[in-house]
Amino acid sequence: MISFDAFEHTRCVLVRTSHPGNIGAAARALGTMGLRRLELVRPHHFPHPEADALAAHAAGILGAARVHQDLGAAIADCTLVFGATARRRGIALPEFGPRAAARRILEVAVEGREVAILFGNERNGLDNDEVQHCHAAITIPSDAACPSLNLAQAVQVVAWELRSAVLGGAAAPQVVAAPRRDAGPPASAEEMEGFFGHLAETLDLIEFHKGRSPRTIMARLRRLFLRAQPDTREVQVLRGILADVIRTARITRGSDAGK
Amino acid sequence: MISFDAFEHTRCVLVRTSHPGNIGAAARALGTMGLRRLELVRPHHFPHPEADALAAHAAGILGAARVHQDLGAAIADCTLVFGATARRRGIALPEFGPRAAARRILEVAVEGREVAILFGNERNGLDNDEVQHCHAAITIPSDAACPSLNLAQAVQVVAWELRSAVLGGAAAPQVVAAPRRDAGPPASAEEMEGFFGHLAETLDLIEFHKGRSPRTIMARLRRLFLRAQPDTREVQVLRGILADVIRTARITRGSDAGK
Repeated sequence: MISFDAFEHTRCVLVRTSHPGNIGAAARALGTMGLRRLELVRPHHFPHPEADALAAHAAGILGAARVHQDLGAAIADCTLVFGATARRRGIALPEFGPRAAARRILEVAVEGREVAILFGNERNGLDNDEVQHCHAAITIPSDAACPSLNLAQAVQVVAWELRSAVLGGAAAPQVVAAPRRDAGPPASAEEMEGFFGHLAETLDLIEFHKGRSPRTIMARLRRLFLRAQPDTREVQVLRGILADVIRTARITRGSDAGK
Repeated sequence: MISFDAFEHTRCVLVRTSHPGNIGAAARALGTMGLRRLELVRPHHFPHPEADALAAHAAGILGAARVHQDLGAAIADCTLVFGATARRRGIALPEFGPRAAARRILEVAVEGREVAILFGNERNGLDNDEVQHCHAAITIPSDAACPSLNLAQAVQVVAWELRSAVLGGAAAPQVVAAPRRDAGPPASAEEMEGFFGHLAETLDLIEFHKGRSPRTIMARLRRLFLRAQPDTREVQVLRGILADVIRTARITRGSDAGK
């Protein structure tokens, strides 16, 4: 049975927001729905009186909002990251409507795992790099003639679906896959980024990218490994493999020296 | 079966709105959800540049909004009137949450009957006289510590529930995530076994198993990669990486020959 406790592990992250009023309005949208956690990544103007004005009684949420220079820092301890995005070509994330996303988010948050929901800049949304940090996309179905919701209103819809899901009265949503009995603590976004950096370095060292597109390859590998949702132990094993590959490659380099 | 035609008979009526920005934002909230009909009763400031600014691409909705001096005139031809209101003592209207209200509204609107949803002034909501025009109340359940949604955000929640109700099947919760749009044909068991064999050979060559239990490691890696459910293309990429690791390791071996 889901309670509002799950909201303690649910954060909304606003990335590169242009208008401080939208930050305040988003704080209010969260607060009215019982969500408390707001984080900001490189807001254009913050703090700002406009934000305060529109936050109304959610001033506390605004005041507690952490400001980051880097998206990775905002989601380092998260094991599930949703990105709010319009449908886009070329980005192959699993796509959820708000209602399904809310259920998935709560399934994870009730276990005490940290979840983040990212919203991008008003004009451009999340950029491709930011989308690469996401496990899945939330898309709010909208009218073709008037497709673009205001940022704070998109936050409102998602927050409302989260609240609805808790109030729902239904028992906890069915877990799609039986939980893994051997799973250790899930790897955080920070650990995954560490792994991806290590992987990129390794691929360079073995000259994997010759004749290929590094960006496409890394994007593909990211999706594959994020989809696998490794636990901490698995990431350690993978990094152990990478370390041994690097060691092997460096022996080679040592032998090549002077050729 | 409900279609968006029902929206032709569904109007949102904003009564004595103080801030023109909220009128514009409400127009946008309606427009993104495919609703078109906005009516205003004694708005404090309208038309107004703030309204235009916040309407964004819903300018047409704003432009078409009728302005009335009297609530009765705005809803004269309506046979169902909902009033958005916080729970109140002494007003014995049947109370609906947004989802139930949306269903009721659409039941009526599909018959071609006119429905109105009233939203009151930001500070005071609908007054008692205005509530007397309503058949039922919509109450958006909100957090006790931060109970009051911004007017346009309340409109957004109701409009979203209306759209969800029409989309019905598509917006219904998906227990399983939408399939990955880029997924190629899934790798067969045979392809996966080929990959695992290649992986085992590679781990031997880089001497990964020294001091570890090969069987446990391979079991772990199998579970991780099977869980990721790679498609054929992804397996090719992974095997390409293994091939380059082997190439790198064999250069080393070549150099080691004779040591």
